[in-house]
Amino acid sequence: MSKLRVIVWGENVHEGTHEAVRKIYPDGMHNVIAAGLRESGDELVVSTATLQEPDHGLSEERLAATDVLTWWGHAAHGEVKDEIVDRVQKRVLEGMGLIVLHSGHYSKVFKRLLGTSCSLTWREAGEKERIWVCNPGHPIAAGLDRYFELANEEMYGEPFGVPSPDEQVFISWFEGGEVFRSGNCWFRGNGRIFYFRPGHETYPTYFDGNVRKVIANAVRWAGPQGTWVDSCPNIQNPPEPLDVKGESVH
Amino acid sequence: MSKLRVIVWGENVHEGTHEAVRKIYPDGMHNVIAAGLRESGDELVVSTATLQEPDHGLSEERLAATDVLTWWGHAAHGEVKDEIVDRVQKRVLEGMGLIVLHSGHYSKVFKRLLGTSCSLTWREAGEKERIWVCNPGHPIAAGLDRYFELANEEMYGEPFGVPSPDEQVFISWFEGGEVFRSGNCWFRGNGRIFYFRPGHETYPTYFDGNVRKVIANAVRWAGPQGTWVDSCPNIQNPPEPLDVKGESVH
Amino acid sequence: MSKLRVIVWGENVHEGTHEAVRKIYPDGMHNVIAAGLRESGDELVVSTATLQEPDHGLSEERLAATDVLTWWGHAAHGEVKDEIVDRVQKRVLEGMGLIVLHSGHYSKVFKRLLGTSCSLTWREAGEKERIWVCNPGHPIAAGLDRYFELANEEMYGEPFGVPSPDEQVFISWFEGGEVFRSGNCWFRGNGRIFYFRPGHETYPTYFDGNVRKVIANAVRWAGPQGTWVDSCPNIQNPPEPLDVKGESVH
Amino acid sequence: MSKLRVIVWGENVHEGTHEAVRKIYPDGMHNVIAAGLRESGDELVVSTATLQEPDHGLSEERLAATDVLTWWGHAAHGEVKDEIVDRVQKRVLEGMGLIVLHSGHYSKVFKRLLGTSCSLTWREAGEKERIWVCNPGHPIAAGLDRYFELANEEMYGEPFGVPSPDEQVFISWFEGGEVFRSGNCWFRGNGRIFYFRPGHETYPTYFDGNVRKVIANAVRWAGPQGTWVDSCPNIQNPPEPLDVKGESVH
Repeated sequence: MSKLRVIVWGENVHEGTHEAVRKIYPDGMHNVIAAGLRESGDELVVSTATLQEPDHGLSEERLAATDVLTWWGHAAHGEVKDEIVDRVQKRVLEGMGLIVLHSGHYSKVFKRLLGTSCSLTWREAGEKERIWVCNPGHPIAAGLDRYFELANEEMYGEPFGVPSPDEQVFISWFEGGEVFRSGNCWFRGNGRIFYFRPGHETYPTYFDGNVRKVIANAVRWAGPQGTWVDSCPNIQNPPEPLDVKGESVH
Repeated sequence: MSKLRVIVWGENVHEGTHEAVRKIYPDGMHNVIAAGLRESGDELVVSTATLQEPDHGLSEERLAATDVLTWWGHAAHGEVKDEIVDRVQKRVLEGMGLIVLHSGHYSKVFKRLLGTSCSLTWREAGEKERIWVCNPGHPIAAGLDRYFELANEEMYGEPFGVPSPDEQVFISWFEGGEVFRSGNCWFRGNGRIFYFRPGHETYPTYFDGNVRKVIANAVRWAGPQGTWVDSCPNIQNPPEPLDVKGESVH
Repeated sequence: MSKLRVIVWGENVHEGTHEAVRKIYPDGMHNVIAAGLRESGDELVVSTATLQEPDHGLSEERLAATDVLTWWGHAAHGEVKDEIVDRVQKRVLEGMGLIVLHSGHYSKVFKRLLGTSCSLTWREAGEKERIWVCNPGHPIAAGLDRYFELANEEMYGEPFGVPSPDEQVFISWFEGGEVFRSGNCWFRGNGRIFYFRPGHETYPTYFDGNVRKVIANAVRWAGPQGTWVDSCPNIQNPPEPLDVKGESVH
Repeated sequence: MSKLRVIVWGENVHEGTHEAVRKIYPDGMHNVIAAGLRESGDELVVSTATLQEPDHGLSEERLAATDVLTWWGHAAHGEVKDEIVDRVQKRVLEGMGLIVLHSGHYSKVFKRLLGTSCSLTWREAGEKERIWVCNPGHPIAAGLDRYFELANEEMYGEPFGVPSPDEQVFISWFEGGEVFRSGNCWFRGNGRIFYFRPGHETYPTYFDGNVRKVIANAVRWAGPQGTWVDSCPNIQNPPEPLDVKGESVH
């Protein structure tokens, strides 16, 4: 298997402004997510990018050489430049995988690719979340038990304003009485998208072994499939019009 | 709007063998479900059928004159004759709606139409179920609040061994820690199928106002669409082979 | 059945700049589409709107009082203001139906709601299109035969860069050797979207009886469902956060 | 990558009864399909099985050690024992991939897993089929051009009586004027199913390079995913009921 090139994108704002977040993630959430991926296997080549870098760290050249992008944002969705959103969307439609984490549900990138409100209900009460596997044969659930728990998380509740997932991997149960479709796959263009709910910045969620396993599985699932890079027509940009009758059987 | 002809099918076994069930449903569960539908509006013409009748009450003639069938069974799935299962499947593919209730998930009819195991986990502990609407614009959720509760129900848990629903209307939360896709739509042939989870025989679930509202909505949603009865080719039986080149443009 | 309020939106550019188009549609394509809808039944209240009107004829007040919007555009997609695109998207997610016609596949509104490139191949050669019904029980196919033909149309070919349709109603065959998914349904938020391929401006497609039947069926299918207008939470805008533990069962 | 164990199942009837078929496939169609797979790469371990063998060559032991099964049948669907159909269905739901070829659309196995009529129209006229890729990033389309052609094939036409495919890879155009969804993916239980249309017994279709490429790609796509074999609950058989309140958070 060839190497899979992954960028872990972090908004990197809360880490500087909230003491509680800095305590858990002194080097930024993105570096912890990246560390989890690195320890999952040698076939991943993992780097990071943040909002504060030029082009948010996502130049055309860099994206062109990326197989999977993970996205965490919350406080500064509005500061992400539309030009970069265009660029990410284009690459996903060309075949780059995209893993959207937690509050990334309201990112420009996710809303652009799904076309819906992506709204939900929420409550920050440090309550228990139990994440159920509803598709045990799915590669993103590989190595998990029937469910796993996070002792303290922010609650997200239905209705989740997204198109019906193409594959439903997880549904969450919350101590306070809500449910949420928390692990959802969509196919868009040549690309694969996975949304994974947990990951509030005030809890050490990205140190959790099961959460790391899910993200590592998802990155592998979302990688470009087959030989599309070399062989398939690019369906992101309109193909040339066919010659008049030139392809006709007559 | 023309009348919608509905058959409420009941296995009608527990009512005779379990004192607890007889107390709640002395005239049978099917008669209570039918009463709920009748009070929902004059445009429904509702009758009942049971396992014990000849042909289980589902003769060819009667099914041919039926728009929607509801199905509750549990103890005697194996006694339903395969010939009747064939007949029901054929009618659904022709366009008859089918509403499968609670333990009907293991009925021959449901398993035949979905093709999967339809398995789930369960626990009978009279616990609280909270049913969340995750598709508030769907006609089956019309008139409901964001969720409704049943104080005592049997628990059903994921993984639910069914194909991905074509539309997801409800997801249930259980006091004991499980979740379940509890209101699911599938399109099969010309017909529409809705599975609705609640309805254990030892609880008065089919007297609940919200449960009755859902079943009444579902029956209207599942009715044959448009003018298919008169105008469309029957895709249940193989169409005739086309004439050799007879339909050709050459 | 209450009245269904429909706006037929037309870009209205080719009619003024191309003699060939003006000959077929001297009063504009939108007026011919509207006339077809009006003759389909009294329960439709049909009006038109064009690019050239203030707000492109789509003020907030008017959209709020609209059940279904049809959209034809081609030469001037770029002139549609983003503010109006936002408004249309919001209304679809609230429950307004949207029928996108022919070259509207590249409209901002359609691309916004689907999130993909919406690209395809094309050829303008006045060739024969044969439109096959692949879902004969679907209400949008009501009253049609197994297929219908248009003697002269522009060709659109696969790959069509859209998410998998939630329901597939038509697939087109072209004389020159291509195929195309030409009648596709998607559910987005509370709203229903239908894309219908035929309708090139240099052919009298919108006078065709079968084409008119499809659009009339589609408008009825796409109308808001059930009682969502009064009863359901609005999933377009984020709901209020739930009270901390206020909804808890504990 | 570990080896993928494949059984190519052949009905093996026409080859003995039709001179025209014997001429093309003197050793049976299954042996030609198997040869195509073997030449596609060393990671496949390919064997064959036929209707005439005990248990149709599909003992419990052998199926338990199989990753992907391909199925071609036509004249003798009715002779396949229901017990073997049960067995194949169970293994697919456990995670074995299934590739159904051409007239296998009416096999008991396919109809059991999809639950619909699987009907279609047909015409045997040796006409041209052009197979379009409508999902160029899909691994089953890897290495293909935008379309490929078969000079002489039986025609299959819409409506194809199947549930909406979870992924649409190919749509066919026929010289005589029909279209057909000819490369369709479904997820069922832990297993993946692919239907591929071409392959009439009187044409040398399984010697065609593109057809061989598609089947080889499909076998790889359909193989069991991730580590389900060892780690996931079996959703084919009902899980044990959960302990009463034993898993509760209370």
